[in-house]
Amino acid sequence: MHTPRPLPDQTFLGQAFHDRPRARLLVGFSGGLDSTVLLHALASDPAVRTSGLRAIHIHHGLHANADRWAAHCENVCSALGIAFDTVPVTVQPDGNGTEAAARDARHAAFASKLEPGDVLTLAHHRDDQAETFLLRALRGSGVDGLSAMRRWRDFGAGRLWRPLLDIPRAALLAYANAHGLRWIEDPSNTDSRFDRNFLRQQVLPLLRARWPQADAAFARSATLCDEASQLLDAEDAAALASSAGHHPRVLSRAALLALPAPRRARVLRRWTTGLGLPPLPAHGLARIESDLLRARADASARFEWSGAVIHAWRDDLHAAPVQAGLPDGWRTSWDGSRPLPLPNGGELVLEGAPALPNPCRVTARRGGERITLPGRTHSHALKHVLQELGVPPWQRPGLPLLSAPDGKLLAVADLAYEGEFADWLERQGAHLRWHPASD
Amino acid sequence: MHTPRPLPDQTFLGQAFHDRPRARLLVGFSGGLDSTVLLHALASDPAVRTSGLRAIHIHHGLHANADRWAAHCENVCSALGIAFDTVPVTVQPDGNGTEAAARDARHAAFASKLEPGDVLTLAHHRDDQAETFLLRALRGSGVDGLSAMRRWRDFGAGRLWRPLLDIPRAALLAYANAHGLRWIEDPSNTDSRFDRNFLRQQVLPLLRARWPQADAAFARSATLCDEASQLLDAEDAAALASSAGHHPRVLSRAALLALPAPRRARVLRRWTTGLGLPPLPAHGLARIESDLLRARADASARFEWSGAVIHAWRDDLHAAPVQAGLPDGWRTSWDGSRPLPLPNGGELVLEGAPALPNPCRVTARRGGERITLPGRTHSHALKHVLQELGVPPWQRPGLPLLSAPDGKLLAVADLAYEGEFADWLERQGAHLRWHPASD
Repeated sequence: MHTPRPLPDQTFLGQAFHDRPRARLLVGFSGGLDSTVLLHALASDPAVRTSGLRAIHIHHGLHANADRWAAHCENVCSALGIAFDTVPVTVQPDGNGTEAAARDARHAAFASKLEPGDVLTLAHHRDDQAETFLLRALRGSGVDGLSAMRRWRDFGAGRLWRPLLDIPRAALLAYANAHGLRWIEDPSNTDSRFDRNFLRQQVLPLLRARWPQADAAFARSATLCDEASQLLDAEDAAALASSAGHHPRVLSRAALLALPAPRRARVLRRWTTGLGLPPLPAHGLARIESDLLRARADASARFEWSGAVIHAWRDDLHAAPVQAGLPDGWRTSWDGSRPLPLPNGGELVLEGAPALPNPCRVTARRGGERITLPGRTHSHALKHVLQELGVPPWQRPGLPLLSAPDGKLLAVADLAYEGEFADWLERQGAHLRWHPASD
Repeated sequence: MHTPRPLPDQTFLGQAFHDRPRARLLVGFSGGLDSTVLLHALASDPAVRTSGLRAIHIHHGLHANADRWAAHCENVCSALGIAFDTVPVTVQPDGNGTEAAARDARHAAFASKLEPGDVLTLAHHRDDQAETFLLRALRGSGVDGLSAMRRWRDFGAGRLWRPLLDIPRAALLAYANAHGLRWIEDPSNTDSRFDRNFLRQQVLPLLRARWPQADAAFARSATLCDEASQLLDAEDAAALASSAGHHPRVLSRAALLALPAPRRARVLRRWTTGLGLPPLPAHGLARIESDLLRARADASARFEWSGAVIHAWRDDLHAAPVQAGLPDGWRTSWDGSRPLPLPNGGELVLEGAPALPNPCRVTARRGGERITLPGRTHSHALKHVLQELGVPPWQRPGLPLLSAPDGKLLAVADLAYEGEFADWLERQGAHLRWHPASD
């Protein structure tokens, strides 16, 4: 099919490696065409060998032939005289599919091998850029999603370099044929790869027939989207800071509403990502826009996604992982001598005293409880105390209540105490500590 | 090929016309499928007829059948009982091709028919959005180019409404067939349309076979790019203001260099567009970045494109239409009684006096001239005077020099005067005015 077209190494290297760093290179080596060419080209540069060159093969264990591929890679490196590591990874598919999970596992494995100053070197090329741009557009992505891979970026303890980003795959194939290289054909075992292969085999050849520069154009658009995304990011950070509440998990609804809607969407995404929550889906942004931002202060609007939740409450939005309440009717006894694990994953700890004055009862809230606060002579409804303290309604079912054997409520997690119990804690110099499940 | 699939009007109108304004609608009516359906659907709404409905056919005169198309459109409107106008336009292809010139002429013709409050209504649909996005990506456009058409925008004295933007072309075809409509087939007579037809006939059907939502996804990406573009625009305006020099045509190089490079590119585009200059091409931005911004203050770096030019000079960039100098060796005589047209398109005028004291000579600069300024006893080299005045070097060949019959230099355009001539002007309460060619 393809006629081998010898490319002089000088030209090839001159184009791709003009910004070669003086650093140890760790080449991600799958054994496929792209990384085989990358490794071979780098290995033929004595200066690269002097600074240090190592191949890292990630063993995903997803395919029956995975052992054979690792052996092939080891043989190639041995023949080239290049140090070689295989790193086994376990891919745990999450909500984002096998492909994303495999990429995350691969990146973690690469990062684990990188020492300060090292440069991870990956073989992504111009066709990859073009395909990724088109795949993202076929999902209706915005500028962040349409952004190109960058030639250089920080990565783990070192940096990531993609020297082949401007090189078409056809040039890599010509190089491989000219040098008689052997490589593993991509096994195409996931949906995302099928989509990519469909573009590669059907769509891009059709586009190139009319627009020979189609790949370069898509890569250029992707680069310009990346520039736009970086400019927007800088402004997003300022807008997020201007909307910040009293806690990182809290944003002011009024401040958010003062932003243009597209900025608000970016700020909400930045906020939740920064909290370590899963990416906010587009329909979530629409829900927040339509229901949460303009909800009445006393209404309890919420949007839940992938184990995370945003609540509209009073003047703010609150984001957090979904927190399980304590089971209805749950109760146990506790003397304070050891931390008490709670059934929703939280924990109750007595610090500064060997034990409670008496073994107590710990229960979930049932409603109707009352508590006599320090300095008061009559009791208050717990409901009003929690409102007063600003404990959001969705956190209330997770609060452990500590009661004396006679049933008197002594403590509401570590948020409020009965008068005599508060005195006892103070005399002892002791504290109750409540660690909610997901903090 | 396509089975007519009747769409109840209610559904179709409900989707597309939910934001119908109470205003007179001027429908752009080419006679093609899209605008035929649009006009028919609007005409079937009595409320639309009550607010006012008019069809505008643009007669480009580019095709042999243009007269027949106009007649067809008139017949359709007559049968529907809708007021109809034909507006002839002359398309003058410029550097951007026939398609762009035809669009500009069409827009000007529409604008000429729009009264305040009127709404121009165009039949662009979702397939158009998707095709445009892909065409722009195939040219390597950034977020501005990838931006979607908007459903609403200001236009001329009124507004522009595109109610079909979310409707696939297939639904329009079904409507047309269900109602037995007749329309003119697009004659595809320009390159850009060929490109578009290639996408429509070859590429998009292939993409839809695997991604049935391909059009909706591209349209969504285009909308998100438009949102990003608007956010960036707001920041661009601030960055341009912070780089402004003593004149709108002047920007500070130091202030530009303090911006991130992608922001700088946007600011430069905004600047030149705001001056009414043609769009800065990508290679121009690269030249400015590499040569003009970092040029030595005494060097004369310039970038010229489509009749416009940017010069780096001293601490600034200067943008302007290219100005022709006066022809080498040009000279004429002038008594000041009438304005003097200059051969490069400029003009010299004496105001406040009937004529000059003597008929004078007007010439182009030849070099070596000297002038004795007011209050001085010895002459200065004109070269130094112009440097002192801050006249940029590229403007100097366009300056008309006024000399007495004995050869004494009296005036350098309206920028500097010889002492006795300055006294004469002052005594007369007169002024010399120089209007350069392109101001």
